[in-house]
Amino acid sequence: MEEGVVIDHTILKVDSFLNHQLDISLLEEIGKEFYTYFKEKKITKIITIETSGIAFAVFVATYFGHIPVVFARKQESKINNKDCYSSKVYSFTKDKEYEVRIDKRFINAEDHVLFIDDFLANGQAILGLLEIAKQANATVEGVGIVIEKSFQNGRKRIEEKEVDLYSLARIKGFVNGKVVFVEE
Amino acid sequence: MEEGVVIDHTILKVDSFLNHQLDISLLEEIGKEFYTYFKEKKITKIITIETSGIAFAVFVATYFGHIPVVFARKQESKINNKDCYSSKVYSFTKDKEYEVRIDKRFINAEDHVLFIDDFLANGQAILGLLEIAKQANATVEGVGIVIEKSFQNGRKRIEEKEVDLYSLARIKGFVNGKVVFVEE
Repeated sequence: MEEGVVIDHTILKVDSFLNHQLDISLLEEIGKEFYTYFKEKKITKIITIETSGIAFAVFVATYFGHIPVVFARKQESKINNKDCYSSKVYSFTKDKEYEVRIDKRFINAEDHVLFIDDFLANGQAILGLLEIAKQANATVEGVGIVIEKSFQNGRKRIEEKEVDLYSLARIKGFVNGKVVFVEE
Repeated sequence: MEEGVVIDHTILKVDSFLNHQLDISLLEEIGKEFYTYFKEKKITKIITIETSGIAFAVFVATYFGHIPVVFARKQESKINNKDCYSSKVYSFTKDKEYEVRIDKRFINAEDHVLFIDDFLANGQAILGLLEIAKQANATVEGVGIVIEKSFQNGRKRIEEKEVDLYSLARIKGFVNGKVVFVEE
């Protein structure tokens, strides 16, 4: 509420604490909260996408007993790599397609994974990770999101896949440059 | 020694624990070790460059009492941004120039900064951060590197700037696909 800056009615800038400068106490609390919500599940690996998810994914992993974190790489779609699982992701913000990739050595059929990311809007990135998990025959135990733009359709698209989705902040919209949260 | 994979006599692949899959216990130990070495300095901020430095920079910051981490953004040089300090960096690995940037709100003359990064080779990225600190009139208290390729000239170039440089692993070279460390 205090530090998020609303730009153009659709973009929320959170670079003072979440994705340029990092508020470490907050990230640690974020890690703890995701652990509290998902702790009954037998999670073997935390998976995120570079860049902004890494900083709190490591704290989630710490609470789960120092399990590994894997961050998917974003790459241009042109280069083929048979050592990786990959999925095409379309970015509405940047209006371009890229690929998310995870090396086949780092996700497999024994894994029970929790996906973590900073923002959920149209859900493209998470759907890409779900596709990778499917290729690897890994079990997806849940998705943890810090900021959900509930006025976009990401939640709907993830819930259609019957995945447990937990968002810490759910934004209904922006009114006069202020964030309005979903009432729960 | 066990998990690093030597490629082409000059590249060390450490993606099973440092920059794709992350060994959280190791990252925590890395954070502790940098804290132990630099703890006498009055550090106000940990600064790294996206992407790989973020995962252990947050642990360094935790040990320093949850001080903020700022990660510099890499961008193409074309776009101007007067709200950021920036410096051009040439990547030998990728043979292209990019720019590292930090928003002017997140580094200033009151700051005493510690730079953290995963690899030191030619030192271009760190020299870029030193240039940004100079623009911001911030005090550089030191540089912490996880893996130093001591057969390249990064250390020399940073020491010429009279900056305290501490590397956890110093590699002399690669012999028959094995890592040989600098004897100290």
